[in-house]
Amino acid sequence: MKLAIAQLNPIIGDLTGNAEQILDAAKTAVNQGVRLLLTPELSLCGYPPRDLLLNPSFVVAMAIQVRQLAQKLPPQVALLLGTVTLNPTAHAAGGKSLFNSIALLDRGEIQQIFHKRLLPTYDVFDEYRYFEPGLQSNAFTLDGVRIGVTICEDLWNDEEFWGKRNYQVNPIADLAQQGVDIIVNLSASPYSTGKQQVREAMLRHSAQRYRQTILYANQVGGNDDLIFDGSSIAFNQSGEIVARACAFDTDLAIVEFDEQKRDLLPGTITTSAKSIDEEIWLALVLGVRDYSRKCRLQQVVIGLSGGIDSALVAAIATAALGKENVLGVLMPSPYSSDHSVTDAQDLAKNLGIKTEVIPIGDLMQTYDQTLEPLFTGTQFGLAEENIQARIRGNLLMAIANKFGYLLLSTGNKSEMAVGYCTLYGDMNGGLAVIADLPKTQVYSLCRWLNSVTPEEMSLKDQDQPIANHQGEIIPTHILEKPPSAELKPGQVDQDSLPSYEILDDILHRLIHKHQSAEQIIKAGHQTNVVEKIIQLVTKAEFKRRQAPPGLKITDRAFGSGWRMPIASIRRQEAVGIRQ
Amino acid sequence: MKLAIAQLNPIIGDLTGNAEQILDAAKTAVNQGVRLLLTPELSLCGYPPRDLLLNPSFVVAMAIQVRQLAQKLPPQVALLLGTVTLNPTAHAAGGKSLFNSIALLDRGEIQQIFHKRLLPTYDVFDEYRYFEPGLQSNAFTLDGVRIGVTICEDLWNDEEFWGKRNYQVNPIADLAQQGVDIIVNLSASPYSTGKQQVREAMLRHSAQRYRQTILYANQVGGNDDLIFDGSSIAFNQSGEIVARACAFDTDLAIVEFDEQKRDLLPGTITTSAKSIDEEIWLALVLGVRDYSRKCRLQQVVIGLSGGIDSALVAAIATAALGKENVLGVLMPSPYSSDHSVTDAQDLAKNLGIKTEVIPIGDLMQTYDQTLEPLFTGTQFGLAEENIQARIRGNLLMAIANKFGYLLLSTGNKSEMAVGYCTLYGDMNGGLAVIADLPKTQVYSLCRWLNSVTPEEMSLKDQDQPIANHQGEIIPTHILEKPPSAELKPGQVDQDSLPSYEILDDILHRLIHKHQSAEQIIKAGHQTNVVEKIIQLVTKAEFKRRQAPPGLKITDRAFGSGWRMPIASIRRQEAVGIRQ
Repeated sequence: MKLAIAQLNPIIGDLTGNAEQILDAAKTAVNQGVRLLLTPELSLCGYPPRDLLLNPSFVVAMAIQVRQLAQKLPPQVALLLGTVTLNPTAHAAGGKSLFNSIALLDRGEIQQIFHKRLLPTYDVFDEYRYFEPGLQSNAFTLDGVRIGVTICEDLWNDEEFWGKRNYQVNPIADLAQQGVDIIVNLSASPYSTGKQQVREAMLRHSAQRYRQTILYANQVGGNDDLIFDGSSIAFNQSGEIVARACAFDTDLAIVEFDEQKRDLLPGTITTSAKSIDEEIWLALVLGVRDYSRKCRLQQVVIGLSGGIDSALVAAIATAALGKENVLGVLMPSPYSSDHSVTDAQDLAKNLGIKTEVIPIGDLMQTYDQTLEPLFTGTQFGLAEENIQARIRGNLLMAIANKFGYLLLSTGNKSEMAVGYCTLYGDMNGGLAVIADLPKTQVYSLCRWLNSVTPEEMSLKDQDQPIANHQGEIIPTHILEKPPSAELKPGQVDQDSLPSYEILDDILHRLIHKHQSAEQIIKAGHQTNVVEKIIQLVTKAEFKRRQAPPGLKITDRAFGSGWRMPIASIRRQEAVGIRQ
Repeated sequence: MKLAIAQLNPIIGDLTGNAEQILDAAKTAVNQGVRLLLTPELSLCGYPPRDLLLNPSFVVAMAIQVRQLAQKLPPQVALLLGTVTLNPTAHAAGGKSLFNSIALLDRGEIQQIFHKRLLPTYDVFDEYRYFEPGLQSNAFTLDGVRIGVTICEDLWNDEEFWGKRNYQVNPIADLAQQGVDIIVNLSASPYSTGKQQVREAMLRHSAQRYRQTILYANQVGGNDDLIFDGSSIAFNQSGEIVARACAFDTDLAIVEFDEQKRDLLPGTITTSAKSIDEEIWLALVLGVRDYSRKCRLQQVVIGLSGGIDSALVAAIATAALGKENVLGVLMPSPYSSDHSVTDAQDLAKNLGIKTEVIPIGDLMQTYDQTLEPLFTGTQFGLAEENIQARIRGNLLMAIANKFGYLLLSTGNKSEMAVGYCTLYGDMNGGLAVIADLPKTQVYSLCRWLNSVTPEEMSLKDQDQPIANHQGEIIPTHILEKPPSAELKPGQVDQDSLPSYEILDDILHRLIHKHQSAEQIIKAGHQTNVVEKIIQLVTKAEFKRRQAPPGLKITDRAFGSGWRMPIASIRRQEAVGIRQ
């Protein structure tokens, strides 16, 4: 029996459009003799639908679409469709009113419904907000083949693999005990660096432990801050990979179940990205393309400072949308170095994008004059530095508003962490492209970009070639000069911050490893530096709260999975510093 | 036996400061012969601590503080302290690593620990993110009195009262069956309009149904977007109120349990607010005071447009912080009406606050000149209107940055809903004071404010008198003129929007009642108006995502409990319109 994984890229809430995508995949699958088509978790509404699920009419519309899909489906193929269903006992017995479900559609009808059993409530996940966990093991028989159904998190509880239990029950163990031929997992698992290795190691372990074939179908595409990487995969009973769909693009992966051997046969295995840098690049390009496409904005505008952050964002945008859809705006001030303009222009030439130069000196002067009655006698300081950043932010938004462009903001994770950025200034934008990349990662990605040929970049069909891609994309001088906000003469970032190597290590320990000040100091960092950084991170919460959505590429991003109080006091004992 | 409710106002994360507050309350209670002191849910760290709980060192610091508090506590009094505790079986058996707990401290030691059983995961609540539900009924005996312990949500599952079950178990029924003398409930229940009536009706119903005394201890104070109203309350077995602590302020309410009658004796009953307007006023004043105090910013700056929104915010800020701590900034443009300045100045005179006038004509001209090379040949439109709003936003932030003020933003819920506001312009600020008030509510509150005397306003000790409070605070002309953003000549809000009565009714149905377009049209609204409003609300999601925290006063605010996708498509069938 042939099975296929439709690795789809849904638009959140677009039930009609998503249903059409699913039908198209079903027709293609039928042409290849497929009997069962898998789609990702909540494939009908896209993942995550968030509070759209609180509208009863949205839930009703989904139920209608499921019935229509069952009728429209070619009769040769059965479909596992991700949708929500009502919890009939919620009213009388308590519990949430919905299940996160999979509907089995076959022969014009809904044959069976399966409910997700393990509901994640960490990081960006809020599933207990909407769903009641299913209590039953899920399986069905199709043409004599016994198939166990799991949904995303259901497979993330192998206590042998994790060294601990995450949930009380383990659906895969239940299915193995029942004796099924194939375990399918319908997922919407967002990308983070190195996650595919973890997924594959975990699934391989479960396949081997239970001697079970596993078909893992993942969603692909960018939805706001989340990027889903696809990379759907199939394992045979020995834990060998028999098929892998491509990463960061839609795909239809077909695998064959041998009814004699009761195992999956080898199929097509797409290779994975060759480095973390390549992975991140592909993720960000997809994230920018999908955000602009799904918001129906075709063109983007970016402030080009001549620095490395905006250079990287411009390169990503060019690859995502094509050079004709990217406008770079240079806004030099009297404090700007000459190279801020020449470096930005060199970059634009390498990318083949248009630029505009808008000097901001007159506006700075007019702000000074306008504020003179209030500011007279005070010293030039942060207020004046912020005015420059906000003039630029205002000009960029004026261009975005006038021409219907999407403004991309260019701040990195290190500066978002310590607040080395201006709210309503350089933080402006509809999407923060590299907000989850520490500065050291920004450098690494730029060096990688300069080192690969277009052929080595595993371009997708939609990826746009970068104009003068003959080696250097990011001008060497941008890579080599000391980073500076250029908001006062001679300023460099390291006037206010430790070196980015040190800063990023401290931030990683603080943010990702949840280490205390004491632990970070023990790891070799200076006490005063650690204390200062922790203070800066805490104080910058009010800025991050108002930041645009930032593309998430780590396991802990400042975004929908970062929920910190603003008006709080964390005295020293709370962060673990001995007094 | 005397019991006391310490209605505390903790600072999130400030374990030392919160512990000191608790000790102070314990000493006062001892002086009044109290044997058992109740504190709110998570009283040690304040509610909600959010992702601070993900830091192991923070959890350790709490455990240390609990032990220290046990030792420092006067020996005459026992304490019910809100804290988190570790789930010892999480690692082996699955489940979250923490419990939301109450520690009973007595005679220098932790005597018993009780875990919250019902964990809310709706609206602003994320308790499954951190906590494992407790499985046991919680009770202890103190000096022969049997006391049942519940934590906040534990009492919100009376299926008779709600007409449905919310959770599978009902802790109060369990305790009643066990036969306890008193049920205490330690809460952190945020304010929304009319909620106290619901709480009291619900608790009265439970008291009567189970013939149980109930002591309900609630947190008070503003924590970011959430305002906790206090109003702790006690019911005797007949469901009569025997004590009520004040609303929107700290308090220590003492009640006496008669060991012969096994019932609570009548105590002091503070009266509740006399109207919804008064409730909202008190809530917002507390919200502003606490946000600025807990962020350690004493002074605020507000852009005064001469309109009703900024007038109300200035009045609230004056009551919260005192007239000497409020600066109003008038920023007239060539499009501003004369009355925009005179009305704002009349208001400032009524409030006794300082003002500065900063005309923005020169800046508008300089922006025009600066952008001319790009904008030449285009028509004056939204881009130019936004520039004005952003000039004002930039000037206000410059003043805030220069002098260390907190900028209060003044947008109301109606405009936040439909996006009738400028991102990085009038949306700028650290706190959005009236972001959860529909425009019609803004009018109602201003009329109420003009109608009450200071004596009728139930001022708290910290409340600041408004300077010329001799009747009119909001100038009549501000109340009577047609609302306008004044971003082009002759503009009024109703050029772009239906009347606020109609708009607010549609928004209420859409946002609070989760009605479909079809239902809203059926209620008597015009199809094209409803369709347009739904479209505007959907499209404005990107603005709301970047808005400052807004003080929540309804059951559905745009804030931490509003989780909508941005890049989504809701076609007509999804919102329920028949085609």
